[in-house]
Amino acid sequence: MPLSESAAHAPTVDDVVVAYATLRAQKPLVQAITNTVSANFMANVLLAAGASPAMVDNPEEAALFAGVANGLLINLGTPTAAQVESARLAAAAAENAGRPWVLDPIAAGGLPWRGGIAAELLAFHPAAVRGNASEVIGLAGLGGGARGVDSSSDPSAAVPAAVELLAKAAAVSASGPVDHVVGRVEGQPTLIRVRGGSAWLPLVTASGCALGALVAAYAGVATDALTALVAAHTHFSVAAEIAEAGAKGPGSFASAFLDALHDLDEAALRGRARIDAPVRL
Amino acid sequence: MPLSESAAHAPTVDDVVVAYATLRAQKPLVQAITNTVSANFMANVLLAAGASPAMVDNPEEAALFAGVANGLLINLGTPTAAQVESARLAAAAAENAGRPWVLDPIAAGGLPWRGGIAAELLAFHPAAVRGNASEVIGLAGLGGGARGVDSSSDPSAAVPAAVELLAKAAAVSASGPVDHVVGRVEGQPTLIRVRGGSAWLPLVTASGCALGALVAAYAGVATDALTALVAAHTHFSVAAEIAEAGAKGPGSFASAFLDALHDLDEAALRGRARIDAPVRL
Amino acid sequence: MPLSESAAHAPTVDDVVVAYATLRAQKPLVQAITNTVSANFMANVLLAAGASPAMVDNPEEAALFAGVANGLLINLGTPTAAQVESARLAAAAAENAGRPWVLDPIAAGGLPWRGGIAAELLAFHPAAVRGNASEVIGLAGLGGGARGVDSSSDPSAAVPAAVELLAKAAAVSASGPVDHVVGRVEGQPTLIRVRGGSAWLPLVTASGCALGALVAAYAGVATDALTALVAAHTHFSVAAEIAEAGAKGPGSFASAFLDALHDLDEAALRGRARIDAPVRL
Repeated sequence: MPLSESAAHAPTVDDVVVAYATLRAQKPLVQAITNTVSANFMANVLLAAGASPAMVDNPEEAALFAGVANGLLINLGTPTAAQVESARLAAAAAENAGRPWVLDPIAAGGLPWRGGIAAELLAFHPAAVRGNASEVIGLAGLGGGARGVDSSSDPSAAVPAAVELLAKAAAVSASGPVDHVVGRVEGQPTLIRVRGGSAWLPLVTASGCALGALVAAYAGVATDALTALVAAHTHFSVAAEIAEAGAKGPGSFASAFLDALHDLDEAALRGRARIDAPVRL
Repeated sequence: MPLSESAAHAPTVDDVVVAYATLRAQKPLVQAITNTVSANFMANVLLAAGASPAMVDNPEEAALFAGVANGLLINLGTPTAAQVESARLAAAAAENAGRPWVLDPIAAGGLPWRGGIAAELLAFHPAAVRGNASEVIGLAGLGGGARGVDSSSDPSAAVPAAVELLAKAAAVSASGPVDHVVGRVEGQPTLIRVRGGSAWLPLVTASGCALGALVAAYAGVATDALTALVAAHTHFSVAAEIAEAGAKGPGSFASAFLDALHDLDEAALRGRARIDAPVRL
Repeated sequence: MPLSESAAHAPTVDDVVVAYATLRAQKPLVQAITNTVSANFMANVLLAAGASPAMVDNPEEAALFAGVANGLLINLGTPTAAQVESARLAAAAAENAGRPWVLDPIAAGGLPWRGGIAAELLAFHPAAVRGNASEVIGLAGLGGGARGVDSSSDPSAAVPAAVELLAKAAAVSASGPVDHVVGRVEGQPTLIRVRGGSAWLPLVTASGCALGALVAAYAGVATDALTALVAAHTHFSVAAEIAEAGAKGPGSFASAFLDALHDLDEAALRGRARIDAPVRL
């Protein structure tokens, strides 16, 4: 069943638990075209969460693989010329095959070259865009401008940009202390805030990248793009919250986070999920 | 003394302990042409085990370095065009200099482009091929087909393919719950099963890749290719078993595994090794 | 205020504490053009220490970014053709914009191709060169020759080479059991030894690379190049010493090291710093 561009109803914790159970049962195959900083941690996050990673990012194989993977992530962290070509081929192939793909437009707002690539990729209609506020704002062409790869805006400031991006992507999220997820419910733009997480997360490099890959995993098993985003953000936030309890710093947190992603079960997910009531935009 | 293509006798735990002590004493220099997911973990595994890693993978230097490294690993996880050229040059240089090299044919069975590269590299006569069952079957052209980079076959199913590959490689292993290692003893194809390991290993990305690099390290110090493979698999499995005791999930396991690789001594290796009696094929 | 090429006085622990406090307050943006082995750990070290990493290493963006980053690291671990082009563009742009940059000439002494690149980059006047003894000796053209990427010389042996390199770089360090840092004080070549660290550090791959990136971070906030090097080496050594207390091996050490880098405060830095009295050369 292909991923719907609009949710039939605003996703609740029940929908998140269903998506989670489906992910664990189906172990979606996620193709990632990603940066060198993130590749290892991202693959470990996918494995721990219950998905199956494959970093097929060369132009010879990217399109072929995108036609069979359950989800595709394109992350623009450290793009090489070959990866940019692979991204175009894979995004086109995914759209053509009706497979969901996710765009993580790292620093797209602050660096014109990659901004142009990100804008071009949008034409292939991603199921989801995941970034920080600056990146979402930058991608929508509303100004902003990322400082390096860190966020410099509050996620709530990115909501108008996220809504604008719904013209190209089925759903959009801006990560931050409170994640802001925007998609369509019965065709109407809707905001859902996901709370939780940990203050250690921004100190673990590529944690945002890994979340983008988890979105691609959920896009491969969920009913609709908004539910996939809400489920991935919730799964990530709950695991981070659990991991924080035993962490003494960013190093021990990263290790505990992988443990928590794996150890999570439906009861813990349900008990700790903090999904706000939907806001019609 | 160059690595022999056939063992004088089937390797036993005594031979593994000798190879291990030699590795610790000689700290073999291992050149790795490998994927972006694995590079960091692989280098840490080599250092912890007692070898010296060098990821020299550009076409300008790959052949030069292959002539001086004690062992070379070529891993096809995320091949770039430059790495493919480097792999050809390095494999040729290694063969020419009589230096052992190891092929890890990631997803070679499932993706025709890299399958062709892997088949081409086989002409340079690797000392060993290490893969999962699908990859070994795929490389031998017996069908199969990997799903992403995960194994989808039982290692025992790969034994006929491994035997077929002995026409090109001195020894072949298929990793899995029970590792299946095939090589020649007094010229006769022989199977040795290595037991142990941990269920956490498949949840740590690039653990198989790192094992391939450890095979290259042992190939640089062992008497023959079969002993190098059995020693690497045994060292890896024993360390994984020790690490599992203190692990709560894949994150803490990965950290404990590096500790265990380093902390291992001859007594622990001897006491925990589980090498089955050889099976003449 | 641009980084001075000569210190007004030999840096003391007070100067290191000031540099450290400035780094924490300003969170310098560090651009890194680095190898695939190091990218993840380096970014995590920078985040834990209080800096902001951005691995912008493509030729389209490298120069633009070098004009805005507070510090730039160029590490020659696994150079691709595109990264070499990026390195030239970024080093030129940094010099032009008066932004400090740091060269980590991995294996420059042992491999002629990258040795030539490193020598060429020196023309862009790095604020600092950081390497192990073999690399510093190799870069200065005094002979030597690195074995793989490990150091094979005592850092004290690199002091003459470091002094020679002051013709191109404002300051130079050779890492080892005792780090040897050479720069100018009131225009006079001066050696400062930094003690501490941990025997686990050399068993964590890319720890030297990460130190190079930390030098670039300090170069973005310190008064002069010598102080930047002494501060980075001291910060690194103190955190390693703290981390060693709870480590059981290289895996748990790496995790504890990130925790310690983050957890460090001025009192611990001051109390544990071991900076020898300066030696006029």
